[in-house]
Amino acid sequence: MADTGKSLQLRSLVKSSGELELSLVEVPIPEPGPDEVLVRIEATPINPSDLGLLLGPADLSTVQVAGTAASPVVTAKLPPRAMPMLAARLDESMPVGNEGAGTVVKAGASAEAQALLGKTVAILGGAMYAQHRCVKAADCLVLPEGATAADGASCFVNPLTALSMVETMRLEGHTALVHTAAASNLGQMLNKICLKDGVGLVNIVRNAAQAKILRDIGARHIVDSSAPSFLDDLTAALVETGATLAFDAIGGGKLASQILACMEVAANKTATSYSRYGSSTHKQVYIYGSLDTGPTELFRAYGMAWGLGGWLLTPFLARLGPEGVQRLRARVAAELKTTFASHYTAEISLAEALKPEVMAAYNKRATGEKYLINPSK
Amino acid sequence: MADTGKSLQLRSLVKSSGELELSLVEVPIPEPGPDEVLVRIEATPINPSDLGLLLGPADLSTVQVAGTAASPVVTAKLPPRAMPMLAARLDESMPVGNEGAGTVVKAGASAEAQALLGKTVAILGGAMYAQHRCVKAADCLVLPEGATAADGASCFVNPLTALSMVETMRLEGHTALVHTAAASNLGQMLNKICLKDGVGLVNIVRNAAQAKILRDIGARHIVDSSAPSFLDDLTAALVETGATLAFDAIGGGKLASQILACMEVAANKTATSYSRYGSSTHKQVYIYGSLDTGPTELFRAYGMAWGLGGWLLTPFLARLGPEGVQRLRARVAAELKTTFASHYTAEISLAEALKPEVMAAYNKRATGEKYLINPSK
Repeated sequence: MADTGKSLQLRSLVKSSGELELSLVEVPIPEPGPDEVLVRIEATPINPSDLGLLLGPADLSTVQVAGTAASPVVTAKLPPRAMPMLAARLDESMPVGNEGAGTVVKAGASAEAQALLGKTVAILGGAMYAQHRCVKAADCLVLPEGATAADGASCFVNPLTALSMVETMRLEGHTALVHTAAASNLGQMLNKICLKDGVGLVNIVRNAAQAKILRDIGARHIVDSSAPSFLDDLTAALVETGATLAFDAIGGGKLASQILACMEVAANKTATSYSRYGSSTHKQVYIYGSLDTGPTELFRAYGMAWGLGGWLLTPFLARLGPEGVQRLRARVAAELKTTFASHYTAEISLAEALKPEVMAAYNKRATGEKYLINPSK
Repeated sequence: MADTGKSLQLRSLVKSSGELELSLVEVPIPEPGPDEVLVRIEATPINPSDLGLLLGPADLSTVQVAGTAASPVVTAKLPPRAMPMLAARLDESMPVGNEGAGTVVKAGASAEAQALLGKTVAILGGAMYAQHRCVKAADCLVLPEGATAADGASCFVNPLTALSMVETMRLEGHTALVHTAAASNLGQMLNKICLKDGVGLVNIVRNAAQAKILRDIGARHIVDSSAPSFLDDLTAALVETGATLAFDAIGGGKLASQILACMEVAANKTATSYSRYGSSTHKQVYIYGSLDTGPTELFRAYGMAWGLGGWLLTPFLARLGPEGVQRLRARVAAELKTTFASHYTAEISLAEALKPEVMAAYNKRATGEKYLINPSK
């Protein structure tokens, strides 16, 4: 990458005509202010949480490619029913990418910024699908000696999410957890945390291969939703762990309801008298992902003491407060190559991220598959 | 009713054979202890919250009547899939009826109990579908001068529920409310409270007749879910009131999801920038009834700041604490014949409550229809 004073940035644009347009645009390399640094981005993951902004609800079967190989322009149709929800981003070309890591190649005059020159750092805050990103020196997490940008690329979203699930459990008075799509990178981290902290964790997976991934890292409670005995297996694991809180990455379908129903059966196994309103134990499922974007179906056979809702990292961190967040960040840095290690299916360039076959692959959101963009490739 | 020393009590029994059995049994008239009184029950409503215990999920198309006219025994089949949920009440003959009112006909030795002799009182606590009920004197709410047992029969469940909805709104940081099946007795009370207290209330009804009931009592925001413009009407009312909390008596179907979606559209009307996770305003729907026992379908197009859950009066009152509850009870007594007046479709005897055609009528749970049992009839 020659220093041309220009830098490539991936953009996502929802046009009022009903089309999504993805492109690589040349932007000027920003000049860091006194307390800022310029990071050359060398690794930035495609998280499920990035796909909403990147692709929105676009129909990838309608993809068209124009432009050049180095500077492709990809378009796809958006379903008309989705347009009202996209009103606030219409015709605004938006940069993408929540987190990433790379080398500090330029620094502002402050001592804090200068101290970072040449260091490998992880950063959070959007617009990471780009060759350069200018950020406050204070927002950089310096990676431990020997850690590469790829090691640190996923240092915020998944690690802080996994840690925050356990924090939510404690804050809301539960003592064990359920997690769905549990063989994901995030799910593996959550297992490592729970094993280390002695927290009961029921892992729900969708097939035997995913169960094996978790068995291999020592997960204790694994139930396979494709097994005929799924509901019995889940109930048994809930009785054993006492879990009354679940984090669900799937969202659509019957799973959230099945979890609540099995929690109710588990709670009633210890009940001594009949309550017409069901068990008084509060049962909670938080939907934090949408691997299945279809409707959530609730068969309300779990009394009245239940809740379902959306869960999002950023508002939770605000609730936890700055000291709590600092505590979590310090743990991530300390356990970067163990508890919080990420694994990637493939490393791709910015231009490759706009190839239709690659888009189809990462948009599958297959459990355990994760793509890493290297914008400097 | 001659003083035979015996008293009739309605019982509901779920048999492990898969049948519901309703009957009238003769029980000894209880003798009040020193701080207790014996109340002759003269009015006790059939609330939706009673039907769960009374009929459970029984299939009323299978009703069989045996016994005598004065002492009928009614049986109906229970769907096999419902049996696991009924495990805790199997083969236990249970009295029914949350609340009622009547005359104190006998009192214990304490001054507090003696002071109630001959008074008309309202009471709460189960087993009210009976000719007599013995309760602590302290638990009696003495009805104001001129109020009959029928006036006071529904003094707890609906009034405290309606007041608690407004209290929940305040406790959880919302400023206005949505209510479904809004033309019900409860809904009418809620309108009177909100009008008096200056709280915005969006009433969702299912037809024009129900809309008229509410218009006639001065309701400000009425939207008809059977109108083609329902979603637009609802959104407009949400923008006008700023309501971000709904209490839903229906439970099944798409309504809860539609409310959340319209709240999101209303919140985004004032948004100035795009958030990929939807509006950050927390949107909450509490399901407190099950007029539609079918599945709840959620089309999650309202970002991540949303919640859905069960809501039940008793745990909420526990959360509110004794002083709060006392404040609500005092208001109910003061406004018994105005804000908290109930209207009944028919007054029936205990035996009539077990007639198949009457059971079918009250089990319809039709909005605005409510049955009053007079066990002394």
